[in-house]
Amino acid sequence: MSTSTRLFSPQRIQDVASELGIPEEYVEVYGRGKAKIDLAALAHPQDGAGRVVLVSAINPTPAGEGKTTTSVGLAMGLRRLGKRVALCLREPSLGPVFGVKGGGTGGGRATLVPADDINLHFTGDLHAITAAHNLLSAMADNACHFGVPCGDKGPLDPRRITWGRALDMNDRALRHVVLGLGHKTDGVPRQDRFDITAASEVMAIVALASGYADLEERLGRIVVGTSLGGAPVTAADVGASAAMTALLRDALKPNLVQTAEGGPALVHAGPFANIAHGCSSLLATRLGARHSDIVVTEGGFGFDLGGEKFLDIKCRAAGIWPRVLVLVATLRALKMHGGAPVKRAGEPDAQALARGIDHLTKHLETATFFGLPVVVAINVFPNDTAEELTAVESALQQRNVRMSRCEGFARGGEGALDLAAAVAEAAEATDKAPPNPRFAYELSDPLDEKIRKIARVVYGADDITLSHGAEKDRARIEALGGEKLPVCMAKTQLSLTDDPHVHGRPRGFHVNVRELRLSAGAGFVVALTGDMMTMPGLPKEPAALRVKLLPDGRIRGLMQNDD
Amino acid sequence: MSTSTRLFSPQRIQDVASELGIPEEYVEVYGRGKAKIDLAALAHPQDGAGRVVLVSAINPTPAGEGKTTTSVGLAMGLRRLGKRVALCLREPSLGPVFGVKGGGTGGGRATLVPADDINLHFTGDLHAITAAHNLLSAMADNACHFGVPCGDKGPLDPRRITWGRALDMNDRALRHVVLGLGHKTDGVPRQDRFDITAASEVMAIVALASGYADLEERLGRIVVGTSLGGAPVTAADVGASAAMTALLRDALKPNLVQTAEGGPALVHAGPFANIAHGCSSLLATRLGARHSDIVVTEGGFGFDLGGEKFLDIKCRAAGIWPRVLVLVATLRALKMHGGAPVKRAGEPDAQALARGIDHLTKHLETATFFGLPVVVAINVFPNDTAEELTAVESALQQRNVRMSRCEGFARGGEGALDLAAAVAEAAEATDKAPPNPRFAYELSDPLDEKIRKIARVVYGADDITLSHGAEKDRARIEALGGEKLPVCMAKTQLSLTDDPHVHGRPRGFHVNVRELRLSAGAGFVVALTGDMMTMPGLPKEPAALRVKLLPDGRIRGLMQNDD
Repeated sequence: MSTSTRLFSPQRIQDVASELGIPEEYVEVYGRGKAKIDLAALAHPQDGAGRVVLVSAINPTPAGEGKTTTSVGLAMGLRRLGKRVALCLREPSLGPVFGVKGGGTGGGRATLVPADDINLHFTGDLHAITAAHNLLSAMADNACHFGVPCGDKGPLDPRRITWGRALDMNDRALRHVVLGLGHKTDGVPRQDRFDITAASEVMAIVALASGYADLEERLGRIVVGTSLGGAPVTAADVGASAAMTALLRDALKPNLVQTAEGGPALVHAGPFANIAHGCSSLLATRLGARHSDIVVTEGGFGFDLGGEKFLDIKCRAAGIWPRVLVLVATLRALKMHGGAPVKRAGEPDAQALARGIDHLTKHLETATFFGLPVVVAINVFPNDTAEELTAVESALQQRNVRMSRCEGFARGGEGALDLAAAVAEAAEATDKAPPNPRFAYELSDPLDEKIRKIARVVYGADDITLSHGAEKDRARIEALGGEKLPVCMAKTQLSLTDDPHVHGRPRGFHVNVRELRLSAGAGFVVALTGDMMTMPGLPKEPAALRVKLLPDGRIRGLMQNDD
Repeated sequence: MSTSTRLFSPQRIQDVASELGIPEEYVEVYGRGKAKIDLAALAHPQDGAGRVVLVSAINPTPAGEGKTTTSVGLAMGLRRLGKRVALCLREPSLGPVFGVKGGGTGGGRATLVPADDINLHFTGDLHAITAAHNLLSAMADNACHFGVPCGDKGPLDPRRITWGRALDMNDRALRHVVLGLGHKTDGVPRQDRFDITAASEVMAIVALASGYADLEERLGRIVVGTSLGGAPVTAADVGASAAMTALLRDALKPNLVQTAEGGPALVHAGPFANIAHGCSSLLATRLGARHSDIVVTEGGFGFDLGGEKFLDIKCRAAGIWPRVLVLVATLRALKMHGGAPVKRAGEPDAQALARGIDHLTKHLETATFFGLPVVVAINVFPNDTAEELTAVESALQQRNVRMSRCEGFARGGEGALDLAAAVAEAAEATDKAPPNPRFAYELSDPLDEKIRKIARVVYGADDITLSHGAEKDRARIEALGGEKLPVCMAKTQLSLTDDPHVHGRPRGFHVNVRELRLSAGAGFVVALTGDMMTMPGLPKEPAALRVKLLPDGRIRGLMQNDD
């Protein structure tokens, strides 16, 4: 439990909404300090410039970069500068909260309030998504059990159901299961899997849907499996999409909370950044943009994953484009990218740092491709040396890139004033000529060309290799009309390559695409470049062992770390 | 969607709370028209007589009895008579909502508001219970995976884990599963099951816990399985109970909604009435009793199951005892108990009705044993004949039992005024000498004697038979100190016997106990008398096919039936 949470007296959530220009009639309070915003608020007239600032990072390391902490701190700092700020972040999943990582609400003095609630059930969105996902699973298996026709596709083939089940829990034992055992009345035996809810296509759909009609259409397009006759069977064919939409009625409404300094934060949807696109909801960003000077939002993992997808998938769908990119790094993480082992990344090491700056430079080049002005935010740790900070600053100055030291963790918005001023200046400088969207690929490109362009432009690869299986997937997806969809890269977050052990700035490599999957509802084709974990496990000593309800109603042990 | 819901303009939920004497500071609003009540409200001084009225029914039939509709109508009627009423009901489960039965919020004009929300995610209690249940499951399998010791019991034996997983969904394919398949990193392969959340012991615990300390203690006592050394391993041994308590912080707070006429309804917890005790939460009943003239509450299924358990388990734990028993029946159901087939139960049939009255009479005798004054509520259907209604009335008059025709479904509180007056009169008549608790058995009775007494007194059986397995279970449970716990009968709801096909008033039968299970956290021993379904399946045409979100935000298809 952070000190700031205890010392700070939160605003009424209606007052937080009013700071964002959202009238009280649209505010549905959900417990203390939480609200959902009715979608009708999106019809309210726009009254802010809504400049979007994307917070991304270098490739993550076990040392932690503090992207969420920096986003929260930046929003606090901007608010202290008198800007109307909407902070748009992802919702945490219960899995990591009880697993290794801890909560996802920032750290130190740069946190969201009420952190306990947000890290646990919040307003129930993840549970609603789990329920909608599993209703479809149960209805698909039920259709097999009774052998009823699915729409005009005929009966579903139980051997070719591709839709798994979902649970918001780190539970490795559910990765591979056989279900339908028992007697004739207990269903059709077959192999299945459970994914964590953040990896569910329903989560990606909620994050990308532009309203209820779009939500229901997208849900209806989800491919569940194949009929006995070989046709793709969708959620609409199974008859599940309308009920799933009903289950998601409230989950589609953006959630409003506040920062530990009282500023508005729209925390809504949390798709995985490997198997899905890793960004908070389109609706929350739109809502924030209507009523703010600046929207601070982030993509999951590094700029090569969540950042690229924010631009190529979310911005394309939402019709928005950021004014500024904030790239978060720490000295420790840079040195790890330069080859320093995690245990010694805290010690000065000029050579490792130089190689780490090489890694950072690749992301800067990518930002230049996308036409985005960059501010590099160094999330400062107490034992960082002035010498190393200056080394990074000088290297960036040579590239004409502004670096800012951010101390949001230790000092809240006050520690992020320099970053906030740099970001505000850079964002406002584009007012007269906002940057035009420039995507890594066009939707009209063939699927392999889309992947190739991402690999070259964003990862710095020479080329890609599609496995035999991926080529077959491609033919199948094209036959289903998926050719014109954007591509969602499922790649390790730890490296610019598809090999998690390759650090720094790799060159001359190929990206190997193993498999292509159609997420027809989310509206993208997932390109898998390795074994993607879609159901994490608990570690030997789960974080859950330290979680405890205190007599005053607070919960201990939810915030030991930060994304 | 009922007409009344559309015509009625709901009260602010804070005003509903104030009608119950609950100050606004304890009201945590959860979306429109829903709130949770902080447990601190229980420390507020009592200001009502809090006479408890138990609504129960004859054994259920496929024709439906309308117990919840009658409870809601009764509360509405009492309110129209100027009484301060607290209605305490169970929370519906998503499974039946999407399966056969439809929602659990009453019917016609006797419904709860907002019915859509209550039938779907409500305030998230069932989801929180699912999460707490599955956190324990994941932590138990995780302990096996890493082979770590559980408390001082040593490592858990994966072959003897008895704690399953839970999902709030009708999903027959999950009844019997094999999990932990895949590679070494994917856990220990073993057989497992999923129960629907209402059947989870965590649900029973939430319903019976008297506060957070009691909740955490009960959760800690849950038996997860057996160690390699043969010792019982609990949730406390696995280290899960504190985190489970944190997950249940808000779920333990009673939920407040209103009837379609604006009166307060505490809708909280919904344990199964076969494998568990089938009553809404102890805390909600306590809260309601503090601030009302009359508390209207119900037990699941018939008086032989939910009614008996209300008295022997919940009242014993809560230190309360009802003033009046309302026994709900319909002419159709009575005739079905008299042998009429479901399709012809709507037609006049004097002989079948007479035999059905025989069935009702057994429940009246049981009520006499418990010392409870009875009002029989006939839930009137439009085609019920005056002749048959009079026949029932006369038969009851001979036993000096008041019968009331209830038309809450068609006319709301106005249609329940007669019932309300009868119940109020009967309840107030006991003010000078409230009935003393009289249980079917004493906690000091041996386990088999407890079951025998229930079977004789409540079911009208001659005796019980314990299978060889049940005898072994008994020895094991006694060795674990479970001898002094109450017994929770898991029996078919369709018959007074353990055979669902035996209707009417059976005599001269034995009840066969197949198995005894210790629910150490809930604090009872479950006696299973047949195959109890703990994970329902969807029917060939699930109710989900008709559920749809309407453009105005209402949801169609949730209320086609009533419990």
